[in-house]
Amino acid sequence: MAMQDRAIRTRRKILSAAAEVFESRGYRSATISEVLNAAGVTKGALYFHFQSKEDLAQGVLSAQDQVISLPERPSKVQELVDVVMLHAHRLQTDPMVRAGVRLAMDQTSHGLDRRTPFLKWSTLASQLLEQARAQGELLPHVVPEETADVLTGAFAGVQSMSHAMSDYDDLMQRSCALLRHILPSVVTPSLITALDLSETRGARVFAEVQASLDEVAGVTVA
Amino acid sequence: MAMQDRAIRTRRKILSAAAEVFESRGYRSATISEVLNAAGVTKGALYFHFQSKEDLAQGVLSAQDQVISLPERPSKVQELVDVVMLHAHRLQTDPMVRAGVRLAMDQTSHGLDRRTPFLKWSTLASQLLEQARAQGELLPHVVPEETADVLTGAFAGVQSMSHAMSDYDDLMQRSCALLRHILPSVVTPSLITALDLSETRGARVFAEVQASLDEVAGVTVA
Repeated sequence: MAMQDRAIRTRRKILSAAAEVFESRGYRSATISEVLNAAGVTKGALYFHFQSKEDLAQGVLSAQDQVISLPERPSKVQELVDVVMLHAHRLQTDPMVRAGVRLAMDQTSHGLDRRTPFLKWSTLASQLLEQARAQGELLPHVVPEETADVLTGAFAGVQSMSHAMSDYDDLMQRSCALLRHILPSVVTPSLITALDLSETRGARVFAEVQASLDEVAGVTVA
Repeated sequence: MAMQDRAIRTRRKILSAAAEVFESRGYRSATISEVLNAAGVTKGALYFHFQSKEDLAQGVLSAQDQVISLPERPSKVQELVDVVMLHAHRLQTDPMVRAGVRLAMDQTSHGLDRRTPFLKWSTLASQLLEQARAQGELLPHVVPEETADVLTGAFAGVQSMSHAMSDYDDLMQRSCALLRHILPSVVTPSLITALDLSETRGARVFAEVQASLDEVAGVTVA
């Protein structure tokens, strides 16, 4: 058990180092030796977990893709908003998430399957929109898969523009503006006014998720 | 004059070669020698036009940024749609435009000012939206600069997703879907039904522009 814990920690350490190296050097230029140096682990330990640079990159991609389970909301569109805003918040604050997104957007990393993160986000959005449709939240003409694809693609670009323009300082404003532009074509007018699309939504959802994780872990906030 | 023509052709040849090399190798890994080989020009000729790899990249970025002047339309929102759909068409068909967009999106090309293309597109969109507002095409709450930024960022991501998913095969569908999702939050309901948002719009606008260029050049289509 202790052994397994150590293996998990080592794997995590290697992935963090890889995230750092990919971010500063770019995927193509990065080497496994650089990751080894940054991680401070043995070659054997690294190759126990990852066979190649492609493997490391896939590891970083999946680490940032991990779907954090969010509190359910009566409105499934609000849940979708929460997924987007929580992701924006994590992009601003978590280096692993940043590195994963950059890898996914790096059009020169031809060795990787860059479709995976797009597909994951789009599938998640599509499922939430299907549920929203079932409970009457969507306008009649909406095709959930199409809207999910538009949201996924559009958000990918908005985060990239925010990265270029302000190193993510304005990501919350840009994300909210995107949602305010797209959702009125998707949801019923009565729902749109009830949604929380504010810029602080991501941080608040993150705090809520952390609090419920702490509760599960039995940590009491005295 | 002949001298100047030759210089323009050489510059163009070098830029095309650079576009090719950046696209296949990635900006970081690409070298000036590779561009020299691909262009088939002398070192002297290359350095006459470009001082460095950064210079070459800026050249490719500005070549794809060149605003093609479009036929004026009674509706300025239709003109904006035409700008977007023409750009999508050129992305599908012109290697220089592809390479420029990839450079702009390449988050590892830290030597470049990646803000420039975002700013150019956003400024152009903002101007058209200001004109649209002046002639009553927009909903009252719309802030042209904000909508211009949303459109610019969102389109950047949609093209990137289309590149990852289908090597641009589905770019027209995705671009139209994006416009259909965003424009209803921006323009008056009576205008929205009058806009041409069809998937063939880009190719038709391109043909129109080519025809008017041929006319200017005195070429008669018998």
